[in-house]
Amino acid sequence: MNDITSQLQHKINNKTKPIGSLGVLEAIAQKIGLMQNTLTPELKNPTIVVFAGDHGITDEGVSPFPKAVTMQMVMNFLSGGAAINVLCKQNGIALLVVDAGVDFDFDPSLPIINAKIGRGTKNFLQQPAMTAEECTEAMKRGGEIVVQQHNGGCNIIGFGEMGIGNTSSAALLMSKFCHLPVEECVGRGTGLDDEGLKRKIAILKKVNEKHANASTPIEIIATFGGFEIAMMTGAMLKAFELNMIIMVDGFIATSALISATQLNKQIIKNCIFCHQSDEQGHKLMLECLGVTPLLNLNMRLGEGTGAAVAYPIIKSAVTFLNEMASFESAGVSNK
Amino acid sequence: MNDITSQLQHKINNKTKPIGSLGVLEAIAQKIGLMQNTLTPELKNPTIVVFAGDHGITDEGVSPFPKAVTMQMVMNFLSGGAAINVLCKQNGIALLVVDAGVDFDFDPSLPIINAKIGRGTKNFLQQPAMTAEECTEAMKRGGEIVVQQHNGGCNIIGFGEMGIGNTSSAALLMSKFCHLPVEECVGRGTGLDDEGLKRKIAILKKVNEKHANASTPIEIIATFGGFEIAMMTGAMLKAFELNMIIMVDGFIATSALISATQLNKQIIKNCIFCHQSDEQGHKLMLECLGVTPLLNLNMRLGEGTGAAVAYPIIKSAVTFLNEMASFESAGVSNK
Repeated sequence: MNDITSQLQHKINNKTKPIGSLGVLEAIAQKIGLMQNTLTPELKNPTIVVFAGDHGITDEGVSPFPKAVTMQMVMNFLSGGAAINVLCKQNGIALLVVDAGVDFDFDPSLPIINAKIGRGTKNFLQQPAMTAEECTEAMKRGGEIVVQQHNGGCNIIGFGEMGIGNTSSAALLMSKFCHLPVEECVGRGTGLDDEGLKRKIAILKKVNEKHANASTPIEIIATFGGFEIAMMTGAMLKAFELNMIIMVDGFIATSALISATQLNKQIIKNCIFCHQSDEQGHKLMLECLGVTPLLNLNMRLGEGTGAAVAYPIIKSAVTFLNEMASFESAGVSNK
Repeated sequence: MNDITSQLQHKINNKTKPIGSLGVLEAIAQKIGLMQNTLTPELKNPTIVVFAGDHGITDEGVSPFPKAVTMQMVMNFLSGGAAINVLCKQNGIALLVVDAGVDFDFDPSLPIINAKIGRGTKNFLQQPAMTAEECTEAMKRGGEIVVQQHNGGCNIIGFGEMGIGNTSSAALLMSKFCHLPVEECVGRGTGLDDEGLKRKIAILKKVNEKHANASTPIEIIATFGGFEIAMMTGAMLKAFELNMIIMVDGFIATSALISATQLNKQIIKNCIFCHQSDEQGHKLMLECLGVTPLLNLNMRLGEGTGAAVAYPIIKSAVTFLNEMASFESAGVSNK
C-alpha cells in the first residue's frame, strides 16, 4: 500500500462518522485523492464535451428518428434547450459542442467547435464507416480539444454524444471488444418497437459478418465506429494522459471507453462510471469492464446526461473529504 | 386519468428526447407536478431537519459507540463539521437541528431548536421507551416545526436523525409494522461485529417478546420508538398535510415513515425515497413499502445524508420539466 493510499484512508476513517458509512462516496474520495496525489483533492472547471456525428447505417432504417435529427439536436444544444444544457447549467458544468462529423454545414458564427472529419460515416453494411486515417485524425482532434480544456484549468471532464444511428456502432464495438454475440449488444436505441429491433439485429449481424476480418483496435473503430465515437475515444485517452478525472456516461460513451481501453488499459484508473443506461447492453458493457456505476435511474438519453446528473455525487465525495471535521477536531468519542 | 396527469405526460413526452429516456427523472417530474397540480412545479427553500435523541436501550450495549456521542455529534452539527452540514451546504439545503430528547442540556444560546421531551428514552428491555402522552407530544412538536418551515416558504423537506442506539428502535418498529421476525430487521448499526450483532438480536428479541401486547400505532411507537423517531413521524404527517415534498432518508427515517403510514396511508404520495441504506433491513423496509429508492451508494450514516446527496437529482427532474425545449419549440423532428 503506498503512502498516500493509507493517508487518505486514515483521513476518511477519522471523519466524524462510522467507518465506511459513506459507502461509494468514500471510494470516490479515495480514488480522486490517489489520482491527484493529495489529501485535499479538487474538482476544477467541470466540463462536458458533446461530440456529434452522422452515421451511414441510418440508410438501413436502424433508428426510428430521421438522420436530420442529429443536426436539429445540435442546433438545440446551441440554443440551450436540450437535456444536457439544462442539467449542466443546474450543476455548474461547462458545456462544449463539437461537430465531429454531422451531415450539415453549420454557420461558422455558431458556438460549435468545428472538428468535422466528414459529412457522416459510410454505411458499414457496404464498407467500413471510415478509413484508418480518418479514425486516427478523429482521435487526434478529440485529444486536442481535451488539451485546450486542460490548459483552461479543467481537471474533470465528461463526454457526451449525439448521432442518430450511433447505438448501432456502439453495439458492434461492444460485440467485437467484449467478445459477445451481436444480439446481446443491440437494443432499442431511441425507441424501436419489437419489429424494428429484430430488423436492427439482423442488419448488424450481417455487418458483423461482412467485416469479420477487422482485428486491430483502429481497424475495428474505423469499421464500426462513428466520427463522434472515434473522437471521444481519442479525447478519453488524452484526458487520461493529462491525469484528468473522466466521467463516463452511457452506452455510446462506454463503447468509446472500451475502445480506449484497447489502446491503454490503465485509463480505467481515472474513470468514474456515472450511470447504467436503460439501453439493453449497457449493463453487460459495464460487467465486461468489471465496474459499478453510480446511478441506475433507467435513463437512456445520451448527450452526457448521466454524467451531468451524477456530477453532484462526485462533488459530494470531495466535499466530505475536504470539509468534514475529524473525531479529534470535533471532540467526538470514537468507538 | 385526470387532466393534470395527462397534461404533464404530454409535456414530458414533447421534450426534445426519446419518450421515456429520462427514466426515473420523468417519474419524479410527473409526481411533483401532480402533487403541486401544475405543469411548472417548483422546489422552494429545500430544508433538512435533523432530530436528535438518546435511547435507554444503550445501557444494554447495543451500539459500539458510547451514548455521549449523540450530544457530541449534535455539537458537531452546530459547528458545521458533520457530513450533513457539508452536504447541505454543497447542495443549497437549509439545515435545522432539533433537540428531541438528548441526554444533555444544551446552552440556550446555541442554534438548536429545543423540543426536548426528556433526557433520553427509558430502556425498553425494562419498560416502554416513553408514555403515550410523551409520544403524541413529540409528534405534535415535530408537526409544529414543519409548520414553521412551511410558513417560511419551504415546500420540500427531508428529515434526518442522530441518536446512538436508534437502529434498535427502528428495527423493532419495522418488525412490528412490517410483520417480520426481529432477526431480519436488526443490523450492525454504526458497526457492530458478529458477536455484537448476535447480542443485539438476542436483546431485541427479548424486548419484542416483553411488549408483545403493544398493538395500536401510538402504543407501538411509544414502546419501541425514540423521541427523535416519534417527532419525525409527526413531522412527516404534518408535511403531508401541508402538501410538501417529503425526502425520505435511510433506515431510521424510513421506520418513522412506516410509523406515519400506520396513521395515514396517503402519505406515500408525497414521498421521494432518496436512497437505500447499507444497514441490513433497509432493503426489506423499502420492499415492505413497495418503493424503489433513487440511490444505492452503500451509505449508512443517517443524519439525512441520503436525502442531501439525492436532492440534486430531484432538482434535475424539475429542471428538465421546466427548462427543456419541446420538439415544436426547438424545431426537432419527432419520430
